[in-house]
Amino acid sequence: MQIQTTDNQAFRAQLAEKADLTGQVLEQILADQAGIPPRLKAAMQYMLQSGGKRIRAAMVLWCCELTAGKLTPAARIAAAAIEMVHTYSLIHDDLPAMDDDDLRRGRASCHKQFDEATAILAGDALLTLAFELPAQRIDDAQTAVRIIRTLAEAAGPSGMIAGQMADMEGEHTAGTLERLRYIHINKTAKMFSAAAGLGAIAGQASEQDVAALLSYGLKIGLGFQIADDLLDVTASSEQLGKTAGKDAAQGKLTYPSLVGIEESRVLLRRLTDEAVEAIRYFGPPAEILRRLALEMQTRNR
Amino acid sequence: MQIQTTDNQAFRAQLAEKADLTGQVLEQILADQAGIPPRLKAAMQYMLQSGGKRIRAAMVLWCCELTAGKLTPAARIAAAAIEMVHTYSLIHDDLPAMDDDDLRRGRASCHKQFDEATAILAGDALLTLAFELPAQRIDDAQTAVRIIRTLAEAAGPSGMIAGQMADMEGEHTAGTLERLRYIHINKTAKMFSAAAGLGAIAGQASEQDVAALLSYGLKIGLGFQIADDLLDVTASSEQLGKTAGKDAAQGKLTYPSLVGIEESRVLLRRLTDEAVEAIRYFGPPAEILRRLALEMQTRNR
Repeated sequence: MQIQTTDNQAFRAQLAEKADLTGQVLEQILADQAGIPPRLKAAMQYMLQSGGKRIRAAMVLWCCELTAGKLTPAARIAAAAIEMVHTYSLIHDDLPAMDDDDLRRGRASCHKQFDEATAILAGDALLTLAFELPAQRIDDAQTAVRIIRTLAEAAGPSGMIAGQMADMEGEHTAGTLERLRYIHINKTAKMFSAAAGLGAIAGQASEQDVAALLSYGLKIGLGFQIADDLLDVTASSEQLGKTAGKDAAQGKLTYPSLVGIEESRVLLRRLTDEAVEAIRYFGPPAEILRRLALEMQTRNR
Repeated sequence: MQIQTTDNQAFRAQLAEKADLTGQVLEQILADQAGIPPRLKAAMQYMLQSGGKRIRAAMVLWCCELTAGKLTPAARIAAAAIEMVHTYSLIHDDLPAMDDDDLRRGRASCHKQFDEATAILAGDALLTLAFELPAQRIDDAQTAVRIIRTLAEAAGPSGMIAGQMADMEGEHTAGTLERLRYIHINKTAKMFSAAAGLGAIAGQASEQDVAALLSYGLKIGLGFQIADDLLDVTASSEQLGKTAGKDAAQGKLTYPSLVGIEESRVLLRRLTDEAVEAIRYFGPPAEILRRLALEMQTRNR
């Protein structure tokens, strides 16, 4: 198992490198952005720099490197933008009227650290900035528009917000596998798919490559959410950096609650295989994306 | 005074016509948009079709007609987009953690009609859709990017959200005229400025015309907010369709509270004059914009 461990460490190092880069880009953007009230900026920074793994941003950067052979400036902007959208969604999801969570990544959630009004506005600010950035800072207008469109469609009322709405409506109601799949696709998988797609778009990839990476991202996202559901059942709050067992307490529809832990693991494995299959034709240059798919199976936080 | 009344009626008819057109565009967009959960869509529709005057959208359409000699498809999209951003801001501002208002345009505010979580998500959805639309539906990428950028800069953390943050922080604290001006510029005037600018951009106007209309819109917006502050003091809830006297009750910083009613009226008149001056060189074709400026002085709701 020595090889497995080494692979694992190498993957984590590469993920950490992309997370660091994204953190630097985000820091620079906030520093450049004049006119943000101090308390609002503090709330945005608190949540942007709260030690998230930045998997979505890393996917943008990796998929750009894969298709363009290098990181383009547009990919850096897209990585920052998707991280802002993800962070806004966490802030609003944690609000008392939504999931009512006091803990996020091992620290106070935004409305606990600041206040509810500031948290609502910080979320709104990050969402708006995510679209302002590509429009302001990507030279090629076609690329900027495509990035904005891909991100907005994944995040909007036919995407992530639809998933969040269905998730809330699904609490304490009889669930079906079809309904759960709808929630996972919309709430989580479309953003992962967009992440991979954004990287390809920022890398001026061919339509075939964009389509393959969108498909890969969707499978990764579905797997990620099942892994997340499994962790909520099997891990401790300390491991997670957020409240464990919350799904069950809130009567949330999850794979473990619907099909059991073992069957959830089977599904997760199948999705991982499909993700790997979608990018097989890229060969060795896509090794890091293959690794990401495998990591999903062994996630412990 | 017969002429004055006739002018007034003609203006209201023209505003109503643009409001109707915008309402139709918004209705069509929501009808086209597949995959929005029914309850979320209902909340978005409830607030989008709640009888607002749609002044911002009308400004987009009028400024496009002025500079292009006709309405372009991009102007229709921009008008719908700015109305979505305005509506999202009303929904979030009314939330209990923000202004806590149960009444909006004479009806229950969004979180009273639905629930808080739905209101938060409906706001998020409208904000996201406002950027998705131009990216999806405006053919010329340069125009789309410029519209998205102008809208996002006006609405974001260096614009409307900064104003809302400062407004909340200003409650029950000693205010200065400088601080109040900051709030009005950011919370209100930048969106009016963007509205006029969006119309010009959608009309492929010259840089000089875009600049003149941005300046006109800023003055209109500043005047609009002073008129709003005055109405909160002088009008009834029934007239306003929202709770009157709220500013004073919340200890909000307003022009009447800071400089008195008479001095506020003087300021409003000065801003109206400046707005008219900014567009004088357009001559008779800008008559409707001149009328809008004058209407501001005699607003009663």
